[in-house]
Amino acid sequence: MPRYRLLIEYDGTGFFGWQMQAGQVSVQGVLEDALELLHGQPIAVHGAGRTDTGVHALGQVAHVDVPKSWDPFVLRNAINGNVRPHRVSVVDAEEVGEAFHARFSATKRRYLFRILNRRAPPTVDFNRVWHVPVELDAGAMHEAAQYLVGKHDFTTFRAADCQAQSPVKTLERFDVSRYGDEIEIHAEARSFLHHQVRSMVGSLKFVGEGKWQPRQLRKALEAKDRAACGVVAPPQGLYLMAVEYGSASSPES
Amino acid sequence: MPRYRLLIEYDGTGFFGWQMQAGQVSVQGVLEDALELLHGQPIAVHGAGRTDTGVHALGQVAHVDVPKSWDPFVLRNAINGNVRPHRVSVVDAEEVGEAFHARFSATKRRYLFRILNRRAPPTVDFNRVWHVPVELDAGAMHEAAQYLVGKHDFTTFRAADCQAQSPVKTLERFDVSRYGDEIEIHAEARSFLHHQVRSMVGSLKFVGEGKWQPRQLRKALEAKDRAACGVVAPPQGLYLMAVEYGSASSPES
Repeated sequence: MPRYRLLIEYDGTGFFGWQMQAGQVSVQGVLEDALELLHGQPIAVHGAGRTDTGVHALGQVAHVDVPKSWDPFVLRNAINGNVRPHRVSVVDAEEVGEAFHARFSATKRRYLFRILNRRAPPTVDFNRVWHVPVELDAGAMHEAAQYLVGKHDFTTFRAADCQAQSPVKTLERFDVSRYGDEIEIHAEARSFLHHQVRSMVGSLKFVGEGKWQPRQLRKALEAKDRAACGVVAPPQGLYLMAVEYGSASSPES
Repeated sequence: MPRYRLLIEYDGTGFFGWQMQAGQVSVQGVLEDALELLHGQPIAVHGAGRTDTGVHALGQVAHVDVPKSWDPFVLRNAINGNVRPHRVSVVDAEEVGEAFHARFSATKRRYLFRILNRRAPPTVDFNRVWHVPVELDAGAMHEAAQYLVGKHDFTTFRAADCQAQSPVKTLERFDVSRYGDEIEIHAEARSFLHHQVRSMVGSLKFVGEGKWQPRQLRKALEAKDRAACGVVAPPQGLYLMAVEYGSASSPES
């Protein structure tokens, strides 16, 4: 059966997360329903990352094995024609070899976390940012973030229900920048623990408001204790921006 | 009575435009209701521009005369506390002299129009862009847009119900740029006719898809005839970004 790689975008607001759950509208479920309509049989959608309820994606990736051969653009348009009114779109599709696996072949995941840092509540960006009305020091947040870059045991920033075998991950980038009233936080790693980005961002907020000195983020990391984590940032500010694949997983190999 | 200038942001999706209309939720109406709650008497809100249903604002300006003196930031927060759940926020407030008038003192209005130019429908930006699936040539659109810059009779790009005394306006800037799948169009003038930006953008779309040569936009302008206009672009892509005031209207003068 031919395998297709799909580039997927969604507004997380209307979904109970990526992963299919009985009785809930999930991104995976909506895509699988559309594919079943097109093929007359159930088709599994394998996503690169299982985003939580409310988390957005501009660059989620999934693969599907389907029983017929498609022009990839026709497949993309056919799926998009069957997912309305849900706010998910297949932005791109391409045929890949059977060695490609959306989740296991991924070599990097890039996330963006957006904070609206002003007193007035969000309007156009309602459900698309974390609204923090107290003024945050983005410079101190960036300084603190650098203590987390590298290979560490991230137990402090891991959800209780995280199913990863090991809490050791390598955080390749964790940058904080201010643009006017908005603070953007970029995080990159091969993979993340469940709630890792939101837990790290929640602790950065403590640094930003002066509750923690930047070095306290290192102490929190070294504690390897969930209780040492600050708050967990809400999902609405989080965006899965891109999933990258090394050459070993390209369709030619 | 002290006069305050308000910087206002809103998601146009949930409003029947700026201007109060019986039986409809308008931005002006929601703000006036909030001010009446705070003062126990009706307060008129004078806006710089009457945006249509669905049009967004990141930089609308209004002024209000109120019967008591406020710390401007307290006034801002008090209004914001009384407009939920409507997606409008007062981002900033300042006291101004009685010579300041939000509408008549304005020396420039800046609009942004966003086009999502790809096959896949919008998700996170649903209701925030004009989705145009056919590929547009942004370079040709920019070339055509320059024919409209300057002082002209804009009758072609004026809504039938426009109440302006004269169809002659001076368009100071009209730029088209592509950023990946998005086309951004910036328009600046002291003032615009009703539907002028959306009418000009709709005609630019004809140029972008090759239906019109760029010079045909000049012919449409010179026709001074509403029938020569292309389509009128939908409101969801339009943002009132800023209203500027010359020194003559500053509170010091």
